Amino acid sequence: MSARSARTAPAAFQGERGAFSEEAARILLGPGAPVLPCVRFEDLFLSLKDGRAAAAIVPIENTLAGSVHENYDHLLNFDFPIVAETNVRIVHNLIALKGVPFSKVKRVFSHPVALNQCLNFFTRNPGIERIPFYDTAGSVKMLVEEHLTDAAGIASSVAAEIYGARILRKSIEDDRQNFTRFFLLRTPEFARRHPVPPAAHAHWKTSLVFSTRNTPGSLFRALSAFALRDLNLAKIESRPLRGKPWEYLFYVDFLGRVDTPNARNALNHLAESADFMRVLGCYPKGA
Amino acid sequence: MSARSARTAPAAFQGERGAFSEEAARILLGPGAPVLPCVRFEDLFLSLKDGRAAAAIVPIENTLAGSVHENYDHLLNFDFPIVAETNVRIVHNLIALKGVPFSKVKRVFSHPVALNQCLNFFTRNPGIERIPFYDTAGSVKMLVEEHLTDAAGIASSVAAEIYGARILRKSIEDDRQNFTRFFLLRTPEFARRHPVPPAAHAHWKTSLVFSTRNTPGSLFRALSAFALRDLNLAKIESRPLRGKPWEYLFYVDFLGRVDTPNARNALNHLAESADFMRVLGCYPKGA
Repeated sequence: MSARSARTAPAAFQGERGAFSEEAARILLGPGAPVLPCVRFEDLFLSLKDGRAAAAIVPIENTLAGSVHENYDHLLNFDFPIVAETNVRIVHNLIALKGVPFSKVKRVFSHPVALNQCLNFFTRNPGIERIPFYDTAGSVKMLVEEHLTDAAGIASSVAAEIYGARILRKSIEDDRQNFTRFFLLRTPEFARRHPVPPAAHAHWKTSLVFSTRNTPGSLFRALSAFALRDLNLAKIESRPLRGKPWEYLFYVDFLGRVDTPNARNALNHLAESADFMRVLGCYPKGA
Repeated sequence: MSARSARTAPAAFQGERGAFSEEAARILLGPGAPVLPCVRFEDLFLSLKDGRAAAAIVPIENTLAGSVHENYDHLLNFDFPIVAETNVRIVHNLIALKGVPFSKVKRVFSHPVALNQCLNFFTRNPGIERIPFYDTAGSVKMLVEEHLTDAAGIASSVAAEIYGARILRKSIEDDRQNFTRFFLLRTPEFARRHPVPPAAHAHWKTSLVFSTRNTPGSLFRALSAFALRDLNLAKIESRPLRGKPWEYLFYVDFLGRVDTPNARNALNHLAESADFMRVLGCYPKGA
């Protein structure tokens, strides 16, 4: 792909237009960036691989639901560098057709997870039925297409904007501590050609994955590579190692740039006891 | 609940009769133990709480798919001790009505995960259609009830036995390194009244959950409590801490009994740096 098409090819995200992933795309790439909606998480990686997309927006963890383990597996199986991250606050809005007042809403469609995150709203409004739907933004798309005048959806504000619907109630989620962390992935070529200067950001993170020999204390020894050098871990996640029952891969994020002497020493130290190790990316710490 | 009813009340497991969880129940409690099939994982804990069940069979991790994170959350939110564990090899069998030969099978129903774990079988038999179904054992139940003579299900051998169906092809899974680890949970009262003598088993495991203060090196310091005492970790799992974005709970299994001086010292050491800590159980190491 040429540098030009890399700039104009879209960013792949999972879900319908207006999904929270599209919010993440706007934050990471600007509001005007072209996007490519995908059905499955794996499609994000495949579309980057075959050049249909120039970037992929990958949700990696949510503060209520935990890690998106499937995407940890894809990060390993594909080999696209993480070049940025962002944390999107999940704000659930009640959205209906323009002209439909709140008093007319008898049914609310949304993804079951979103419905479950707005239980206080349904307790306060016992006359409104909850109907599980395959997608948050998709529920708004559907009620606009079907011209439903007694229904609403629960989705992001971007979904209301994209489908020309209206927000009836803002931020009806029970828990405001609901954030999803997204990675921005690029091709290795793009990342090489467009490096972010170290001085451009004060705080950086490095993500890596490793497996240890299955010996006593091996994880402790692996983590000592960071702790002994005052490199702070932001996250650790384990995933099963295929073909080796009860052994694990560990995904670690530490605060700092991978190309500092301190981090290089830590990775050399880790490599002494790790069976396998790969850096997944080094990127500015997200807000 | 009296000791007598605790012995005759059933063991709750998730899924239809014949699920892999029922295989685990037979291993953990003997082939004749009464069982209570439940729809959701949460029902396992609720039925133990309200006395409908005397035991719960809880899948906690699979060597291909990883941890069952929902059950880690339930282990924390409910407070039932883990008293045993077992590892069940997931053997997928092609099962049809008695009298239906393999050559007549045009459609195969099963849970999507099971269908995906038998891809080699479908590649070798391109004329057979895969149809996703809500449950492995439920697919066998359905084809017996509907008397389907052109279809088969993929499920455990226990499912064939229970529904009076026949195994056409044994062990059609792609990967034989497919195991699910199950916990046996009891009420605290039952566990107190029926302790397993330490000498009855050579190898023991202890499971616990803790959170650390969000300070640099806190996980490393927490793990040092085990490493410095040569207590080997078998597993570590992280889950988000509700209400504290980007902070985590850690679930750890170590090899050894919780009531040895060495383990007690380790837990005292861990408590110095942990915000929260709870032992979830101490049980013989499963085969």
